[in-house]
Amino acid sequence: MPLKPITLYSHAGPNGWKVAFILEELGLPYTTKFIPFSVVRKEPYISINPNGRVPAIEDPNTNTTLWESGAILEYLVETYDRQEGNKERKISFAPGTPEYFEAKQWLHFQTSGQGPYFGQAVWFTVYHPEKLPSARERYIKEVRRVSGVLDGVLASRQYLVGGRFSYVDAAFITWFSVIPQFLSDAIDVERDFPNVSVWLGRLQSRPAIAKVVKERADVVASQFS
Amino acid sequence: MPLKPITLYSHAGPNGWKVAFILEELGLPYTTKFIPFSVVRKEPYISINPNGRVPAIEDPNTNTTLWESGAILEYLVETYDRQEGNKERKISFAPGTPEYFEAKQWLHFQTSGQGPYFGQAVWFTVYHPEKLPSARERYIKEVRRVSGVLDGVLASRQYLVGGRFSYVDAAFITWFSVIPQFLSDAIDVERDFPNVSVWLGRLQSRPAIAKVVKERADVVASQFS
Repeated sequence: MPLKPITLYSHAGPNGWKVAFILEELGLPYTTKFIPFSVVRKEPYISINPNGRVPAIEDPNTNTTLWESGAILEYLVETYDRQEGNKERKISFAPGTPEYFEAKQWLHFQTSGQGPYFGQAVWFTVYHPEKLPSARERYIKEVRRVSGVLDGVLASRQYLVGGRFSYVDAAFITWFSVIPQFLSDAIDVERDFPNVSVWLGRLQSRPAIAKVVKERADVVASQFS
Repeated sequence: MPLKPITLYSHAGPNGWKVAFILEELGLPYTTKFIPFSVVRKEPYISINPNGRVPAIEDPNTNTTLWESGAILEYLVETYDRQEGNKERKISFAPGTPEYFEAKQWLHFQTSGQGPYFGQAVWFTVYHPEKLPSARERYIKEVRRVSGVLDGVLASRQYLVGGRFSYVDAAFITWFSVIPQFLSDAIDVERDFPNVSVWLGRLQSRPAIAKVVKERADVVASQFS
């Protein structure tokens, strides 16, 4: 029986697109519903996610509603990236293996380290009602620190885990796009974090990733035009 | 064969104790090594965790080194909270079940929502070199928002997932302790978030949790005495 489309709740911000990457990579049918910032903390959306944030998904195939992008990624690969016998999984790793837990480590680094700090750097650049240079500087420094950790490990490997592309590589892509967009006076990824830069290029050469990156660029452009 | 002790790298801050709760709840042997803030970003510790943060663990039983508290919790329950047949797991849920993914959702909410925002509120209260009331206010508001989400769902349940205590409940405990310690001028959990307050009391009445809470209080007291 063919799968019914999964509903992805998203908007122009970075986190929903992490889920779109994985849906595309796994070839899953889905439809995206864009939830404007103005209604994300109101009914009916907060009945889907009481935290009032995107992304969230509804999967009619398993009757699952789930929010938090990190948990959604874990759900998608554990539910839909299974393989029979010893066959290698497409973008994840078999439960219980060292790579399985190493991937979770990088995923949590992305959701608890990259996302929040990159997000605060954008906040104090664009949205905070008062200019606070020392607050912005704090988060610029954290963006550099997080980028430096990645740059260090990527000096000796092409992908974060297991020598091949997996869902955790994809999870980092969209937050890096805020650097040229909002932080270019302070950070130049190509110059300052060359291994990260090459890795991001490698990831974005994948057709599924490129498709979603293009789609997001169109959504962002339409919102700011 | 008895298990060899797991090494937990920790310090007075909130995140290491989340791991200690789970080690205690599962009755696993472990030894704690405290890494002072002054050396956490230097060798030899950054060979264990290139992110230069605690916690990390080394488990000689599986030859695993892992960092990011969220990933460590997932590792511990998936490795050591297995049960044969249909027997219920002690503090987690069988892979693939709705509760298994719901727990991950709350875990990511803790690591990407509670931890970062509560942490920034403490930062702008205690550590930032300049007083920035509007930055502190931003994070006080986020602490209230996160606490409000929990208070809402806990109005109709005793535990976050599956009607019983699990590792995700424990994950929230230590960050709540920063409120009376640093944010008491702005937030009173008992008055403002009564369901959270009752839940925290319920969690801390568990012997394993109470033991670790006491141990942390002693470590914090010795550092500030």
